[in-house]
Amino acid sequence: MSDVYCALVHYPVRDREGQVATAAVTNIDVHDIARSSHTFGLSGMFVVSPIDAQRALVARILEHWRMGAGKRRMPHRSEALAICQPAESLELVRQQIEQRHGRAVRVITTAARSDLGLPISRFSELRARLAESSEPWLIVFGTGHGLADEVLRASDVLLEPIRGRGDYNHLSVRAAAAIVFDRLFGAHD
Amino acid sequence: MSDVYCALVHYPVRDREGQVATAAVTNIDVHDIARSSHTFGLSGMFVVSPIDAQRALVARILEHWRMGAGKRRMPHRSEALAICQPAESLELVRQQIEQRHGRAVRVITTAARSDLGLPISRFSELRARLAESSEPWLIVFGTGHGLADEVLRASDVLLEPIRGRGDYNHLSVRAAAAIVFDRLFGAHD
Repeated sequence: MSDVYCALVHYPVRDREGQVATAAVTNIDVHDIARSSHTFGLSGMFVVSPIDAQRALVARILEHWRMGAGKRRMPHRSEALAICQPAESLELVRQQIEQRHGRAVRVITTAARSDLGLPISRFSELRARLAESSEPWLIVFGTGHGLADEVLRASDVLLEPIRGRGDYNHLSVRAAAAIVFDRLFGAHD
Repeated sequence: MSDVYCALVHYPVRDREGQVATAAVTNIDVHDIARSSHTFGLSGMFVVSPIDAQRALVARILEHWRMGAGKRRMPHRSEALAICQPAESLELVRQQIEQRHGRAVRVITTAARSDLGLPISRFSELRARLAESSEPWLIVFGTGHGLADEVLRASDVLLEPIRGRGDYNHLSVRAAAAIVFDRLFGAHD
């Protein structure tokens, strides 16, 4: 398996009206997605916010679980959060991965919407592609009401929306990330 | 598809030492699992706690999103939480479903552990069985450190653990529920 990273993006995302906005960091997103990332073998997770105080909050969450009382109480959570770090922008995440691997990173985005007019990749196609790849990859998740169009348009792969049953499709980013990792990397029958 | 329900159980569950305990209700579990349940076409979700004050908390959360300011701000969340209700015990959940359908409900449990010596069902087997079934089913998730052994032993079907990559398997109950629903009911390629 190639090195796959994920980024949980708080800017640029859409707000309720579809305008570009900055979302606040939610404590439980950081734990949940770190645990899911580590379970499915990802190499790292970035929590992206341009706001200094928000990145400081992420650093405090990580410190609590990695070194503080949280580590003694929940060592498994400490292990998962070891792969997590704050970042100021997606561009800096990309640069950091490219410096580590000495080659370009391929960016995957996900969106619940399917009205963008962009080519989409099926999960099965991307799963096969990742299994054979030696490049580093970055899967980008949006908080708020999803990633801004500019992020989707700039990505190398736009994944098809997760479909359940019927038209309702309002999974939390925590649930969506878990399902995306499972579909791409899970050990199925 | 037959009618499938889920229950998020706060008693009896295991604590860190593996002892039977009562876990506290977490606000975000209720939203997340209701949204995942509704996305994957479940007929209902029960939040099980024997503690009156905890069920009252669940009722307040539901009221906020169904009728209060939450509904105006997030109508999609209101729709998902309409399928959710508090319940005092798993036995009462079972009785309620059986009264509604006039026949026995089959109970599915999930556990990250595989050391129980019980026969386990693979996801693919259960998916096929559910697709052909006309009985009501109930999928039971444990909070805390997972369902107490007595619940696992009394169930009709024990699902295999979700496997990612490697040995780490400490998904949140929110992530685990999302993956279980997707593996059983998701529209895959």
